[in-house]
Amino acid sequence: MTKGREAIHHSRRLQVLGFVRERGETSRVDIARELHLDKRIVSAVVDELLRSALLIPAGFRESRAGRRQELLCIHGGHSNYVGIDLGATHIIGLLTDLNAGVLDRISFGIRPGLPVELILDQMRSIAARLAASEKRTADVGAAGIGVPGFVDPETGASLMAENIPGWREIHIRAGFEELLRCPVYIDDCSRAFGRAEKWAGAGRRESDFLVLDLGYGIGLAVFVDGRPYMGSGYKSGEIGHVVARPDGTECTCGKRGCLETVASGQGIARLAALGIREGRSTVLAGLTQGRTDSVTAQDVAIAASLQDDFSIGLLREAGAFIGVALANAVTLLNPARVIVGGGLVGAGRFLLDSLQAELNRCTMRGIREDLRFQVSTLGVDGSALGGALLAMAPVFEPAANTRSNAKEDTG
Amino acid sequence: MTKGREAIHHSRRLQVLGFVRERGETSRVDIARELHLDKRIVSAVVDELLRSALLIPAGFRESRAGRRQELLCIHGGHSNYVGIDLGATHIIGLLTDLNAGVLDRISFGIRPGLPVELILDQMRSIAARLAASEKRTADVGAAGIGVPGFVDPETGASLMAENIPGWREIHIRAGFEELLRCPVYIDDCSRAFGRAEKWAGAGRRESDFLVLDLGYGIGLAVFVDGRPYMGSGYKSGEIGHVVARPDGTECTCGKRGCLETVASGQGIARLAALGIREGRSTVLAGLTQGRTDSVTAQDVAIAASLQDDFSIGLLREAGAFIGVALANAVTLLNPARVIVGGGLVGAGRFLLDSLQAELNRCTMRGIREDLRFQVSTLGVDGSALGGALLAMAPVFEPAANTRSNAKEDTG
Repeated sequence: MTKGREAIHHSRRLQVLGFVRERGETSRVDIARELHLDKRIVSAVVDELLRSALLIPAGFRESRAGRRQELLCIHGGHSNYVGIDLGATHIIGLLTDLNAGVLDRISFGIRPGLPVELILDQMRSIAARLAASEKRTADVGAAGIGVPGFVDPETGASLMAENIPGWREIHIRAGFEELLRCPVYIDDCSRAFGRAEKWAGAGRRESDFLVLDLGYGIGLAVFVDGRPYMGSGYKSGEIGHVVARPDGTECTCGKRGCLETVASGQGIARLAALGIREGRSTVLAGLTQGRTDSVTAQDVAIAASLQDDFSIGLLREAGAFIGVALANAVTLLNPARVIVGGGLVGAGRFLLDSLQAELNRCTMRGIREDLRFQVSTLGVDGSALGGALLAMAPVFEPAANTRSNAKEDTG
Repeated sequence: MTKGREAIHHSRRLQVLGFVRERGETSRVDIARELHLDKRIVSAVVDELLRSALLIPAGFRESRAGRRQELLCIHGGHSNYVGIDLGATHIIGLLTDLNAGVLDRISFGIRPGLPVELILDQMRSIAARLAASEKRTADVGAAGIGVPGFVDPETGASLMAENIPGWREIHIRAGFEELLRCPVYIDDCSRAFGRAEKWAGAGRRESDFLVLDLGYGIGLAVFVDGRPYMGSGYKSGEIGHVVARPDGTECTCGKRGCLETVASGQGIARLAALGIREGRSTVLAGLTQGRTDSVTAQDVAIAASLQDDFSIGLLREAGAFIGVALANAVTLLNPARVIVGGGLVGAGRFLLDSLQAELNRCTMRGIREDLRFQVSTLGVDGSALGGALLAMAPVFEPAANTRSNAKEDTG
């Protein structure tokens, strides 16, 4: 095959695989019709994908003309993937199959101030244990790691995570590729979360949509044409650092009044500690028993569920700030859908109700009418699942926004 | 040719044309190398484009190996294009060639409250006069119209322009296609302005960048992968309606405290009228001679240049509000470049200086380091030029974000 033909063939292969992944069970006829491809070409590509076990038969369907059509689907057991999510307060690792079905899970809580080297040790240990898991159903094809802050997917470096003290210029990929002996990809953890929503969650059929990741920090994944938008330096989506309070306190990023200072897990905890010290919440003071500085957003959520007015107010205010920032993003990008997830979503209705109210109030009518709002159903493992999806992106996506030094083997 | 082959051939043709447009004078060898295409395929495509007069020879260049390479460029005289920019205060029409070189220009000032039907009459008259201009160098291939507010490029309707009273659900395309007897495309005027920056201005070689259009209203064109991002309902870029002042005055869009209420041409004029009535600027009062309500942002700029403190303050504050909103957009999108243009840019350094200062102050360091800031050099005709570029998009762009009912004839 000439170079040009090979490229066309490769891109058709990805096109067919991506289509089957999106549609689920589908027939050769569907593929040809929807992708505007010649039936013979589709049959040749499908036969090859069946031979390499990336597709498997999934029964038959009667067509209108009375002819049986063979259905096909992605073969989950073709290969396994490791996804790791590093957060400021946790490491979560998942082992999945090629259908993003979860086979195994290991998590680890990070206490504030844990040395960077110990965090990396835990990440490596979790990745190695998952890769050797007895629940594995195939070889591990690749691993994907989501980290907070700025990343360089090309070199595989985590450049800066302002919410993890001392975390700077960490070249993650090389060490993990040596450890796991497979390609390793890295990306921002909120974009990883977005990938999970796109391929296993509420973003499945969407082109232009946003995924808001509310946790210890706040991030946003911007999807354009069904793919994560990276930005000119891979730094897209830093909604946690838009200005929420021009006269606000200093943020970990060095600026003042960022959204994260008043509305993230971290910001809510800071304001709660302040409130306890000022004697504004006996419920919170009781819950934390004097360990004021270790109060978390989760404590605030518990106090709020106990009808603590101060905590309810904190969550409502945080939700309102997030709602305005999100409305501004929606006003710029006119997405079809906003999916909100992350640990803070568990803080209950107080935060989400005011978030939604402000989002509606601050978005132009015409843009609001195009928008569907939705809470994520993926739970706390969203970003780790996104890591696994990042790892398998080269199997499905043309020119995936991911690169690896190691050789790829996708069958 | 089979349907598949025809599609491949068509897409290669666009690819080659788009490449030559971007590079200027270029050789077959350059094209093959940069587009990773087979030399024979490139030669066949180029020969066909030379025959249809979309490309013309542009002299020779000595290659290193001592062989002469024929250079090629877009043939501006292949066809002409009409671009129309409808603003709240003006209509500007341009006739251009296929190189976006301007051949003729007609403009018309709109007084506030001019009936919609008269505005449409003027637009039609300008378009017809340009299409029949004696400066025409070829047949008019298509026309492109930029309008403010929400549009539906598929049906060719201008849905709503909140800054033009009574402008609602105007089906522009059909009438103009009948009048001009060529395809007519419509889009938002700020995205049209963005197209001008992309193909004739400072955005030429950029992929991910923003174009801020500061005029009577404020709009933003978001470019992703070198193409204008439209949004799920073609409503992207409404930065004029992000929240600038949560407690602010009512906006024409129905919300409160939008950026346009304090920082657009319209907003500045409103605040100036208020200031005159409150006796805060004798310079402005003198300039407008009692016609307080007809004061414009231009009057404010003149007063500022006469060292009127009130006017200087108004422009500085407007610039600061715009700077914060722009910083928030930059924080979400991590663009490589921001280009600022539109009528307000002529208001002088007071507005631009505070805009840039706030943009820098409110953008994270890592994202700021990726960003280049630049004032547009296209002047007031940017959006009209963008209209012409919208009209010629189907000649250069695969699956251009434009549609027309009329048959296309691009050679």
